[in-house]
Amino acid sequence: MHIGILGTGIVGQTLGLRLVQLGHPVMLGTRDPAQLDEPKGRGPDARTLRTWLALAGSAASVGTFREAAASGELVITALSGVVSLEVLQTVGEASLHGKTLLDTSNPIDVSRGFPLTLFVKDTDSLGEILQRAFPTVRLVKTLNTMTAALMVNPHLVGHGDHTVFVSGNDAQAKAQVAELLRELGWHDILDLGDIATARGTEMMLSIGHAVMRALSPAEIAFKVVR
Amino acid sequence: MHIGILGTGIVGQTLGLRLVQLGHPVMLGTRDPAQLDEPKGRGPDARTLRTWLALAGSAASVGTFREAAASGELVITALSGVVSLEVLQTVGEASLHGKTLLDTSNPIDVSRGFPLTLFVKDTDSLGEILQRAFPTVRLVKTLNTMTAALMVNPHLVGHGDHTVFVSGNDAQAKAQVAELLRELGWHDILDLGDIATARGTEMMLSIGHAVMRALSPAEIAFKVVR
Repeated sequence: MHIGILGTGIVGQTLGLRLVQLGHPVMLGTRDPAQLDEPKGRGPDARTLRTWLALAGSAASVGTFREAAASGELVITALSGVVSLEVLQTVGEASLHGKTLLDTSNPIDVSRGFPLTLFVKDTDSLGEILQRAFPTVRLVKTLNTMTAALMVNPHLVGHGDHTVFVSGNDAQAKAQVAELLRELGWHDILDLGDIATARGTEMMLSIGHAVMRALSPAEIAFKVVR
Repeated sequence: MHIGILGTGIVGQTLGLRLVQLGHPVMLGTRDPAQLDEPKGRGPDARTLRTWLALAGSAASVGTFREAAASGELVITALSGVVSLEVLQTVGEASLHGKTLLDTSNPIDVSRGFPLTLFVKDTDSLGEILQRAFPTVRLVKTLNTMTAALMVNPHLVGHGDHTVFVSGNDAQAKAQVAELLRELGWHDILDLGDIATARGTEMMLSIGHAVMRALSPAEIAFKVVR
């Protein structure tokens, strides 16, 4: 399945590389696809897109946001939450119409530091904002409660025995996303219900960061025990 | 250890009964201790205080909020978050001075229905509000991410293999609370740090309710996998 990923930071690169390895042609979308030699993302794992293309091989490509969205049968947002809406507006609904949009973005208020704050929380969610703005898109919020490394390798902690949450209004799109999550190694895929339940997972940012600060520098994951 | 519990709903009654069974004399504090025959709390588990006293035996008693707080070497809030501050003001700092206050209350905005909303969230927490109002109290926020049944019986789900969070500024008080949690059957007691980390656990209300609605009517718990 052709997949377009909007965003070239750690999340976009990590998801893209793994999805290519799983046999999916991937195009990463970025503001300026000509900038192949600038490190993307932060920290020691930041790679240039040239390096990423060399790693990912011939099934991988880089394009504009719009090209990446148009190329994908399924589209993934791997963006900072503050720019998700703007980037999707740049792309336009035509390139996304009827497609499943796997949204990993979180409403972190990047203008503040720690403790982490959110620009939308219990009365709305970024998932709902994006779904309202693009009503013909089948938005599924998932993978937003963990690091990029864990998204593509749940076995990094606890032998993969932990939970990934899924929120969205379209059952077919959620089934498609669940299939992709299983390919990534996920077993405990918990469908929370409609997109309003994204409030719950987006607000987990706060406990997630508190736990990571308390246990630093370990990877951590949440399991719903029942 | 003498324990005073503020609140006579399901949480107060359940914690009180179990703590008496564990050998701690308990006084439940309530607005009007003469009302022994009115069911407290909601749902099928709501009991009158007369029934509770009969179940709990001679080490149990009922008094005013102030009497319960004064009686306890350790004090527990088992209150709706909207009244926690007011009840503690009724009690007064003198009855709480230097004591460990185990705070289970959550900032649920009870004026609204579902999806659940909070009257304080990422920029502050109920734990911090109470700690600021009573600076000589050693406040420890814990047990606020689960039902009353699970608080006193973590083995109800997953053989007890899940996490209880602890937040507070006073290491000695947190050690005392951790000891009490171990008596209740908890093994995975995760100290998140200072009271500001209560923002994380209080904001878990949203994911907790989403999961309970998705999996209803099972008990659920969260485990930090690392």
